Amino acid sequence: MGEFLTEPERVRHITRGLFGRQSDHWTRLLTNGTRISLRGGADRADDAAWLSLSGPMTLVASSDYVRGVGFALYENGNLSYYDLGYYLVGANFSDIAAMGASPIAFLSVVRYSPCLSDVDFELIMQGIYDACEAIEALNVGGDIGTADKVTLSGTAIGSTSGPVLTRSGAKVGDFLMLGGDTGVAAACQQYFHSSMKSTGALKPSQEDELLDRWRRVSPQVSLGQTLLEEGLASSCQDTSDGLRATIESISTQSNVGFIVDADLVPVNSLVEEVARYSGESTPLDLVFGPSVDFRLLFTIPPIEELASALEKRFSTVTRIGVATHRRDCLLRTPRGRLAQLPGMIWDHSSRVEKLW
Amino acid sequence: MGEFLTEPERVRHITRGLFGRQSDHWTRLLTNGTRISLRGGADRADDAAWLSLSGPMTLVASSDYVRGVGFALYENGNLSYYDLGYYLVGANFSDIAAMGASPIAFLSVVRYSPCLSDVDFELIMQGIYDACEAIEALNVGGDIGTADKVTLSGTAIGSTSGPVLTRSGAKVGDFLMLGGDTGVAAACQQYFHSSMKSTGALKPSQEDELLDRWRRVSPQVSLGQTLLEEGLASSCQDTSDGLRATIESISTQSNVGFIVDADLVPVNSLVEEVARYSGESTPLDLVFGPSVDFRLLFTIPPIEELASALEKRFSTVTRIGVATHRRDCLLRTPRGRLAQLPGMIWDHSSRVEKLW
Repeated sequence: MGEFLTEPERVRHITRGLFGRQSDHWTRLLTNGTRISLRGGADRADDAAWLSLSGPMTLVASSDYVRGVGFALYENGNLSYYDLGYYLVGANFSDIAAMGASPIAFLSVVRYSPCLSDVDFELIMQGIYDACEAIEALNVGGDIGTADKVTLSGTAIGSTSGPVLTRSGAKVGDFLMLGGDTGVAAACQQYFHSSMKSTGALKPSQEDELLDRWRRVSPQVSLGQTLLEEGLASSCQDTSDGLRATIESISTQSNVGFIVDADLVPVNSLVEEVARYSGESTPLDLVFGPSVDFRLLFTIPPIEELASALEKRFSTVTRIGVATHRRDCLLRTPRGRLAQLPGMIWDHSSRVEKLW
Repeated sequence: MGEFLTEPERVRHITRGLFGRQSDHWTRLLTNGTRISLRGGADRADDAAWLSLSGPMTLVASSDYVRGVGFALYENGNLSYYDLGYYLVGANFSDIAAMGASPIAFLSVVRYSPCLSDVDFELIMQGIYDACEAIEALNVGGDIGTADKVTLSGTAIGSTSGPVLTRSGAKVGDFLMLGGDTGVAAACQQYFHSSMKSTGALKPSQEDELLDRWRRVSPQVSLGQTLLEEGLASSCQDTSDGLRATIESISTQSNVGFIVDADLVPVNSLVEEVARYSGESTPLDLVFGPSVDFRLLFTIPPIEELASALEKRFSTVTRIGVATHRRDCLLRTPRGRLAQLPGMIWDHSSRVEKLW
């Protein structure tokens, strides 16, 4: 249980098995006929991974960091090392999904403290591996080694046959669409960081449902691909900074405002329960605040049939508002009054430090 | 001097200026006619960067971490924040150089402690920026935000028109070539971590020369490109794990052994001085040990004229040995005796923790 191999030994005994012989067979065909093939992956142990591309394509790349220690749910024992690895991959590919791109490859930086046992190290690597499998991305290695504490970061690489979805294409009148409910990730933090747990406010199955938002991040790759390939969306962004911040970001980049209908915004019943028990936030504070649910927020041309068809095809997709001439983003209450959007803005430099 | 903007403000006031309007103009033509164009860089502030590729190519990608705090030369004040940013880029592209690839883009993860001032944050970003400029790589953003301490990691993306250099192609009889002297990085650590500095053993200009190996990492991109494009090298790897570890790695991957001629190995006079003053290591211990000098080590077919031509064209390139049938890697002393290679092997899990 508490073994500590050296780094070369960890490569030999733990990671090599995970990377297998990936360079022998991985290939992918884009819709325009371009073929992508892995020529040298982590199994080849060269200085870098390499892929051959046979025709025109667009390459999409993004990096994200996960705050290993400092990730309070992990520090409190609610997330395992496996979960951290899984999260790293999901968080990175959510950015790729937001561009409408297909996952290709994942590079990870896994630095661990000398106190991290081989078992725990393997759990991180297995979480990364399984998340890559789930998302059909190649796990092509990266950098492992010691640091003074667990530090995880990653780079996701994706591709499209042509252009991508951006934040800047929303037009006045466009419908604002949300890929799924938000607020659950924040409700989970509020629940587990307070004394609520000890009151028996939620059943174990409900606690698991909250934690699953962190344990099994599932970026909306298929939704993003559909929006791009079928030319349906005028703009798109993932909600990794929270719903309100994302609405305001598309607003800024597209030079439009938004009116969001409070009635239309999906509110998970767990979010309502946590808000009620905590007394600290309203459900909409959690839904619009810096809750990291990795949903896609996007705009489509104002065609009722298109909105309905999307809602039918992707059961979690909901129309929540409309793009306006005015540059501000407002909430329309059930009684028709316009108000500021609820939810704190994600401020990486202060508030979140306390939350996480 | 001691200002602390929030993260969105840092993006607005500091990083935006660095990224400029990069998406408007960056394009690169490969030798086979394939064109790579940046379509959306950090200036576009989308979820990811994207590039369009017009024809066949090979994509090369690698990630590396720099141990911000824990980097003793930085902790002792010998490296600035600017130097750390510069190092991050150089270290990452050394892996791209070792594949014979051309730099395309760089993604950085820069997490800083809440105590890092705006000035210091800007220094890191400027170091990254300038190193990317020097190497002609696009600096396409990544992830910035707080952490409990400075944490830097990056991903370098490169390209070639076809195959790449790998570690596995060395053949018996091939000449073993080294891209430049090694040991200076380790000598620098030994000098500044000991009491040698206070003895006035080296002049300030010599101290600067030692530190430059860390401050201005210059990956051997042009050498790698030449080796690949002209089909000269049978194997290649960078010496970021130290010379001995790199020789042994090519040996393992290529199923050959090596005999290195002690006479032929370049020893920088500073390495000799530091070894003499310290009394802890011989010059060859430093040259072969875990000294991070980012040189390319490669093999070429055993043609004297080819070796000479390369040594003439790249003045720092030196032939240091030959690939053998036996699987071990040995040093041939000036008197012709065969001995183990000097130098400790880089052990990320213990020794280096103490050194750095």
